[in-house]
Amino acid sequence: MSIKKAGVLGATGSVGQRFILLLTQHPEFEIHALGASPRSAGKPYSQATAWRQTELLPESVGNIVVQECKPEAFADCDIVFSGLDAKYAGDIEQAFVEAGLAVVSNAKNYRREPTVPLVVPIINPEHIDVVANRVNAAKAKGEKRPGFIICISNCSTAGLVAPLKPLVDAFGPIDALTATTLQAISGAGFSPGVSGMDILDNIVPFISGEEDKLEWETKKILGGVNAEGTEFTPIPDSDMKVSAQCNRVPVIDGHTECISFRFAKRPPPSVEQVKKALAEYECDAKKLGCHSAPKQTIHVLEQQDRPQPRLDRDRDNGYGVSVGRVREDPVLDFKMVVLSHNTIIGAAGAGILIGEILNAKGLI
Amino acid sequence: MSIKKAGVLGATGSVGQRFILLLTQHPEFEIHALGASPRSAGKPYSQATAWRQTELLPESVGNIVVQECKPEAFADCDIVFSGLDAKYAGDIEQAFVEAGLAVVSNAKNYRREPTVPLVVPIINPEHIDVVANRVNAAKAKGEKRPGFIICISNCSTAGLVAPLKPLVDAFGPIDALTATTLQAISGAGFSPGVSGMDILDNIVPFISGEEDKLEWETKKILGGVNAEGTEFTPIPDSDMKVSAQCNRVPVIDGHTECISFRFAKRPPPSVEQVKKALAEYECDAKKLGCHSAPKQTIHVLEQQDRPQPRLDRDRDNGYGVSVGRVREDPVLDFKMVVLSHNTIIGAAGAGILIGEILNAKGLI
Amino acid sequence: MSIKKAGVLGATGSVGQRFILLLTQHPEFEIHALGASPRSAGKPYSQATAWRQTELLPESVGNIVVQECKPEAFADCDIVFSGLDAKYAGDIEQAFVEAGLAVVSNAKNYRREPTVPLVVPIINPEHIDVVANRVNAAKAKGEKRPGFIICISNCSTAGLVAPLKPLVDAFGPIDALTATTLQAISGAGFSPGVSGMDILDNIVPFISGEEDKLEWETKKILGGVNAEGTEFTPIPDSDMKVSAQCNRVPVIDGHTECISFRFAKRPPPSVEQVKKALAEYECDAKKLGCHSAPKQTIHVLEQQDRPQPRLDRDRDNGYGVSVGRVREDPVLDFKMVVLSHNTIIGAAGAGILIGEILNAKGLI
Amino acid sequence: MSIKKAGVLGATGSVGQRFILLLTQHPEFEIHALGASPRSAGKPYSQATAWRQTELLPESVGNIVVQECKPEAFADCDIVFSGLDAKYAGDIEQAFVEAGLAVVSNAKNYRREPTVPLVVPIINPEHIDVVANRVNAAKAKGEKRPGFIICISNCSTAGLVAPLKPLVDAFGPIDALTATTLQAISGAGFSPGVSGMDILDNIVPFISGEEDKLEWETKKILGGVNAEGTEFTPIPDSDMKVSAQCNRVPVIDGHTECISFRFAKRPPPSVEQVKKALAEYECDAKKLGCHSAPKQTIHVLEQQDRPQPRLDRDRDNGYGVSVGRVREDPVLDFKMVVLSHNTIIGAAGAGILIGEILNAKGLI
Repeated sequence: MSIKKAGVLGATGSVGQRFILLLTQHPEFEIHALGASPRSAGKPYSQATAWRQTELLPESVGNIVVQECKPEAFADCDIVFSGLDAKYAGDIEQAFVEAGLAVVSNAKNYRREPTVPLVVPIINPEHIDVVANRVNAAKAKGEKRPGFIICISNCSTAGLVAPLKPLVDAFGPIDALTATTLQAISGAGFSPGVSGMDILDNIVPFISGEEDKLEWETKKILGGVNAEGTEFTPIPDSDMKVSAQCNRVPVIDGHTECISFRFAKRPPPSVEQVKKALAEYECDAKKLGCHSAPKQTIHVLEQQDRPQPRLDRDRDNGYGVSVGRVREDPVLDFKMVVLSHNTIIGAAGAGILIGEILNAKGLI
Repeated sequence: MSIKKAGVLGATGSVGQRFILLLTQHPEFEIHALGASPRSAGKPYSQATAWRQTELLPESVGNIVVQECKPEAFADCDIVFSGLDAKYAGDIEQAFVEAGLAVVSNAKNYRREPTVPLVVPIINPEHIDVVANRVNAAKAKGEKRPGFIICISNCSTAGLVAPLKPLVDAFGPIDALTATTLQAISGAGFSPGVSGMDILDNIVPFISGEEDKLEWETKKILGGVNAEGTEFTPIPDSDMKVSAQCNRVPVIDGHTECISFRFAKRPPPSVEQVKKALAEYECDAKKLGCHSAPKQTIHVLEQQDRPQPRLDRDRDNGYGVSVGRVREDPVLDFKMVVLSHNTIIGAAGAGILIGEILNAKGLI
Repeated sequence: MSIKKAGVLGATGSVGQRFILLLTQHPEFEIHALGASPRSAGKPYSQATAWRQTELLPESVGNIVVQECKPEAFADCDIVFSGLDAKYAGDIEQAFVEAGLAVVSNAKNYRREPTVPLVVPIINPEHIDVVANRVNAAKAKGEKRPGFIICISNCSTAGLVAPLKPLVDAFGPIDALTATTLQAISGAGFSPGVSGMDILDNIVPFISGEEDKLEWETKKILGGVNAEGTEFTPIPDSDMKVSAQCNRVPVIDGHTECISFRFAKRPPPSVEQVKKALAEYECDAKKLGCHSAPKQTIHVLEQQDRPQPRLDRDRDNGYGVSVGRVREDPVLDFKMVVLSHNTIIGAAGAGILIGEILNAKGLI
Repeated sequence: MSIKKAGVLGATGSVGQRFILLLTQHPEFEIHALGASPRSAGKPYSQATAWRQTELLPESVGNIVVQECKPEAFADCDIVFSGLDAKYAGDIEQAFVEAGLAVVSNAKNYRREPTVPLVVPIINPEHIDVVANRVNAAKAKGEKRPGFIICISNCSTAGLVAPLKPLVDAFGPIDALTATTLQAISGAGFSPGVSGMDILDNIVPFISGEEDKLEWETKKILGGVNAEGTEFTPIPDSDMKVSAQCNRVPVIDGHTECISFRFAKRPPPSVEQVKKALAEYECDAKKLGCHSAPKQTIHVLEQQDRPQPRLDRDRDNGYGVSVGRVREDPVLDFKMVVLSHNTIIGAAGAGILIGEILNAKGLI
């Protein structure tokens, strides 16, 4: 397999740094271009960014000269990973798509577009087929591959849908779902990010826009596609009631979510059947042989006090999701605790795995 | 009002230290006797305990010689506050009651006894009437006042029922309730307590026995009393479904609870009606003029990111409860965030306020 | 004693909020005017600031309309407390002084001015006499009282000099001193302040400008005044070598400093003599009867694991300093651990106590 | 190279778990026997221990049946790593040595024995030669290899001597040294370990016995060997004054140490010379080709706010030490900040690297 040229937009931000960290160690991709604000453009990356990852910045990457986020500078890229702020992502990503580029974005801007796949790569990679259909149609007409965008889901959405999808596959639709999240601070970035004064010996029971994202994105990711294979059809609110309560907690990495849910079908499965369905779920990315795909997609833990973010977030390099305390719920059917690594399967890492899937499917 | 003589059982533990801290500054009580294990008995309190409160131990208290937890040593006490470990509380507290003493206990042992009041003093002080009835019956027969025990609720139960009671009073029964708690570590005491390795950069999604306590105690506290006024009649499970998910978080003091609930009556009230009922609730302890009663029982906060434990836990010296983010819930009727001070209204502080109520009612 | 009118500059920042918090509960001062940036001016204070103190903002203060930081608006103030950022403090405070106002400033701008007192109020209130001399000279000439500025020391300086001054008084000059600080994050304010990502499960071994402040200010505070009583004469570097290493640690309030030092005189005193001198030190502010003066200026702790910030920072409402582990040092003479409350005796609280001293001395 | 059979004593404790974690991934060693208390003996390891590492316990290790810590059960082991508590280590390790076994111990019991090497493997592996001399003497006499013990240094000692050794090699003896440590909690283990109540929003300025260890061990590690090559000759107190102040801070892993020191020789080297000597130091373990030896022994950081534990502790898998802020010191000659991973180079990891050195030297 030839090495694919990767670009990174928003390269100096915290998501951009994570993309770069993952790409520097990647067998399929090489960093070809880094884009950031005009203020950073023209500087070597090492000077443009305040690198704050736990691994040192490789010198070869530090020497790359940062560009402005314009498609021309990324024309040779097989794939472009965007860690842009929502403030800028809208216009820039559109320009890149129009220029025929393949964009995988962590920004929220296009997640709700009917034609844009919103993908948690261990859960719904088949949503990428809507793009594949467009690509194939163009190919059939002898046209060159059109540009496209794939959106990475919100970080807390990724953790939530991870155990739900195997259960829906096995036991049919879920019609009611509550999720209370305990979210790590790394999701908010560095500067400003979450202030130390706000999070030491404290909880902040609010994350702007987060509950709405969790409630909405879940229905698109668990939803379907229209008959033509061109548009996504999220589950209607009337068929699936989702209620989220989101909290920021003093944890560096790893979102913990206490969820409970009810199946539409009566009687519901047993606790053992639920655990079995979770443990046996094997994600398509693994079947495709993707480098970053988790060996075990869902780890079902039996210890009563697990999963815990510090101990379990790095399972399968952060691509595996841990579930514990699966038990019956007096109000809905089941409750459980889900832990996912917010910057890996919930952000940059998901983007890289989506890139691997695109590569495996010949879309880049 | 004459000063009442107070005893403290389990005086060297963390709940005992809190009782002592609150009593040393109290206008109605004076510390008369301190009880602890045989290992501590005979030593001055300052040597028997590893004092770890944020205020210094008053010398006068440090000089008190610790006794074994036997009724004889507490015979002169008007009231005995028990911070005993559940392992010892059962036998010791029974002996004290049989010896005619008035015991206010933080232990879980007698909470589910049908004749024992389980009291959150800002919420259901009227449950003390079951004891008052027994006292009055004895008085009527010319007998001396019988010993009795009043149980303080579990810490997370206190925060949960605080906003529920005013709402049930105003809008009728709640038939479904979910609570996900983010509990401070002070509730687990010092040694062993929660290990630093377990709670730094981490969440523990399990507290032994806690979910069951939250689910069960809520139904007794919001429940009624039989016609004879002698026994408590908790709400049956079939009438009120309660589901709890309890987490330990890196916070020193203050339990945060994300709750959602549904009223039995249709249609439910509006968000504004709910907030008004909470804000206007005035606890009986305040009406009785109790020293520690909160000026404002429930603080309804309008800022979208409140309550927060570090900023709001000390409201009304920890006797006031804060509620924020009151909003409609897609699954049940409403959701909100509740914050209560776990060692004040959720433990030792509640005991002191119960003592004040007993005093105001002439029961000690 | 008549109530003095107080103004606060930089009222919306974290130091300004602390000034306000302390003034709202103060028997000698009342808040008369609040100043902030033009962006905030014209708004009620409650709207201009994001109040983040642990006590609620009193409604009466929330309703005060914020002004721009111009002397006219503060003309009626008997005293003006400045929590201004160093970026703005230089010009604004000068204008206030020129307008004849009495300014107590937390900014660093004028600390090194030879004619400006740099005061830790429990340590060197006699430095205020340099201002008193100017005031008296003007009075003698029949002129009105001139404006003046008193600077509050850097927060870590306050904790450092607190135990040194009594020792120098008792045993003569210190000629070598090392201090490694473990500083709380509240000193850096809220926004940006210290990022949660920087301080959770972490230490930052650098605080911009801090080591230089600690090393320089110590020599001015422990230094003298020229013969005319008009200018300060810091201890020369050759007479006192000071070396600081400053760290930011995950603590909300309370600076811990591990210090060691050598007396110029041989032989040095004994450990017991050192402890006695510290314990017996009584600050002038207490002798003057100042409201906020600590009952005990230096608390000498005998427990081997104290002082600790969470347990000891609030001693004497944060105006008392705690010293522990006084012992001989193999390299210099003695080593010890010092704890001081950085936002009380190290910042806003010091300003208030300076105000009380000014009031007691009839300078405002 | 053949695989060596390794035993682990104290296998269920936190140091034992770390030994096991490192051994399960090791190319030279395989776990052959696990020893723990009689209470654990007879149980499969997975049941005997509460595994709390960030990587899952491999099933193959979990199935090993735990033995009592008696030499018979470890007779086939080429090397035995001891994570025993000091309470038990004395007798057990002696019995193992007498039985002819090679023991690498993390316990403090034998560190001060004149014939026992106290080794930081990246710093003084040549101290192992004292054992090699004994082994060779026995060999020469046709006797079988005698048992021996190598002691791992205290965790904070390892970080301290790491930069000192290259400097002493380059510039001669250091005659005065002060170190203030900010130590992570993982060094104290899990149960009880450091209580969350003691370390959240707090500093504990005391670690029992630690300052003495730091002051004493440094002089043995930087010291020499007698002419016969049989006994260690620590630097006398009169030649090197060492003063330590040890603090526990809210950090999971990674000890930060603020140190300052003076060379005996005048004039001292320049800051640049000091940095160069540190950066160019290459440890013997690397020259020996040891698997775990750091690629770069001392990382000299130029950013003004580094090293930081969360970002820098895992450098070279925790076997590399980071040094930053090298600068002149007004009291001694230089000051700097040192960061080392306390459970890797400061404990179990050091043991494994010592094992590799023993293997490379043919001593096991």
